[in-house]
Amino acid sequence: MSFELSLNTGTTPNLTLEEAVEAVATSGLKHIGPWRHLLEQAGGAEKAAALIAGAGLTATTLCRGGFLTPADHQGRRAALESNRAAIREAAMIGTAELIMVVGGLPAAAHLLAGSGGAAQKMSADKDILGARGRVAEGLAELVPYAAEHGVRLVLEPLHPMYAADRAVLSTLGEALDLAAPHPAETVGVVVDTFHVWWDPQLREMIARAGAEQRIASYQVCDFNLPLAADALKSRGMMGDGYVDFPTISRWVAEAGYTGPVEVEIFNQAINDQDAATTLETMTQRYEQLVLPALRGSVPALDAPVR
Amino acid sequence: MSFELSLNTGTTPNLTLEEAVEAVATSGLKHIGPWRHLLEQAGGAEKAAALIAGAGLTATTLCRGGFLTPADHQGRRAALESNRAAIREAAMIGTAELIMVVGGLPAAAHLLAGSGGAAQKMSADKDILGARGRVAEGLAELVPYAAEHGVRLVLEPLHPMYAADRAVLSTLGEALDLAAPHPAETVGVVVDTFHVWWDPQLREMIARAGAEQRIASYQVCDFNLPLAADALKSRGMMGDGYVDFPTISRWVAEAGYTGPVEVEIFNQAINDQDAATTLETMTQRYEQLVLPALRGSVPALDAPVR
Repeated sequence: MSFELSLNTGTTPNLTLEEAVEAVATSGLKHIGPWRHLLEQAGGAEKAAALIAGAGLTATTLCRGGFLTPADHQGRRAALESNRAAIREAAMIGTAELIMVVGGLPAAAHLLAGSGGAAQKMSADKDILGARGRVAEGLAELVPYAAEHGVRLVLEPLHPMYAADRAVLSTLGEALDLAAPHPAETVGVVVDTFHVWWDPQLREMIARAGAEQRIASYQVCDFNLPLAADALKSRGMMGDGYVDFPTISRWVAEAGYTGPVEVEIFNQAINDQDAATTLETMTQRYEQLVLPALRGSVPALDAPVR
Repeated sequence: MSFELSLNTGTTPNLTLEEAVEAVATSGLKHIGPWRHLLEQAGGAEKAAALIAGAGLTATTLCRGGFLTPADHQGRRAALESNRAAIREAAMIGTAELIMVVGGLPAAAHLLAGSGGAAQKMSADKDILGARGRVAEGLAELVPYAAEHGVRLVLEPLHPMYAADRAVLSTLGEALDLAAPHPAETVGVVVDTFHVWWDPQLREMIARAGAEQRIASYQVCDFNLPLAADALKSRGMMGDGYVDFPTISRWVAEAGYTGPVEVEIFNQAINDQDAATTLETMTQRYEQLVLPALRGSVPALDAPVR
């Protein structure tokens, strides 16, 4: 079956992997996209793999590798080591798709220090071109290792509001340029509606990504306004914000993508609610706003949200 | 003189035009970029022109026209009328440069209803391609009127975080494509560091803008993190955020721009402080981080901010 729905565990951050797997299986869905810390909490990738397979699910992606922008030797080496571990974990849980958030400017690394290993002291380095160069170098170093493990490094362009602290990679076109030196089976891209919906080159770049066989995942969630106090949590349930899902979904289908569709929503209210409710709502909204366009029957833009 | 500094009154929103003019003149600067509501408060564009000229200042821009995206006939007609008034006001205060914020999606118009004439009821229209089409149409309608008045319509690409509610125009490349059918003396673009610093095509598009004679204004302010609770106020004093001013300023100079440089900072703390302090700090930071690169002597990226 094409276009099967998958729960990214970022949508249900209060659940353990075991709880998330059970919620997904109970809801009738067949796919899950876990974050790495859930694998660790579950006792490692092997146990996580057993949990996922034991419930009859498959893993659609692993979130996440990346953060390849440290300017110092030690930081770069640690980043590569972490990415190699992520590659092994992806292979172990049976997904070929390792999502890569490439990292931000050294000057902003202290902002994420609380959430994992970044620098504690503010650097003066605001050189975005240099940071992008280090991403390209790190990627080239990781490609052979990923290929050996049958894993694809999936570049995720992030919304430009995160360019300083999370990803100096902001557009699908730039992701495809970065992927270009490498085989399509080892470096791909993810189309995440929240991050790319505003891009004037979106249609053209989705078509290019398809033609180059690089679309590794389609992730859907909405762009809400006003932005949340924590900007990361501005993602919304499909239909609640400003993304034109029928149009973008049609472009993704026209580009030849037929794989699973992941729902990844960082949003305090959704994250805090009962997972069964979230799974029910996301399935309804998906079937209303996304799936018809993927299948080639586009609902009217002004159809009311149920 | 090239590269003279100008105060955009968005940086000192608590001042009347008279007060802002006085603060600028006292600080030794020679230029001001007023917002339209200050003209109205001052008793109209003619009186505003007298205030500005009376203090020996020149107006570098007028903020702002635009909001050309209403989907209904009445909304479009009102938008064109408002823009024609803005064109006349720009001519009257003696600036050729009318900054245009093109407008967002009809579905988000209710969010700005409090700040001027937008729809009160939420529309379901999230069609960004349609909205962009209406911007192109509105622009074409306004060009002859602007040309008659010797005014240039200056397209401002806004940061993609404002694509839903303020401007469906997000990149300099897209602005240049939109300008392309029209003469360079009647449709230009503004390079505002806050909005475009993250763009992977920035260098190339600044060069193109210069080659096409379309750079009407260079506006500097920083991109601060974390984003402000009101996302519009995330702009910062140069040096306080993550923008690489020496690099972008060098590109602007290489593109042949030699005009004034405007400082437009929406930031609660800066907006609330004494205008003399703001003018002093912005002049210092400008001379340290921006002007040397414009003049071709680029300070080291890791030079400490004074």
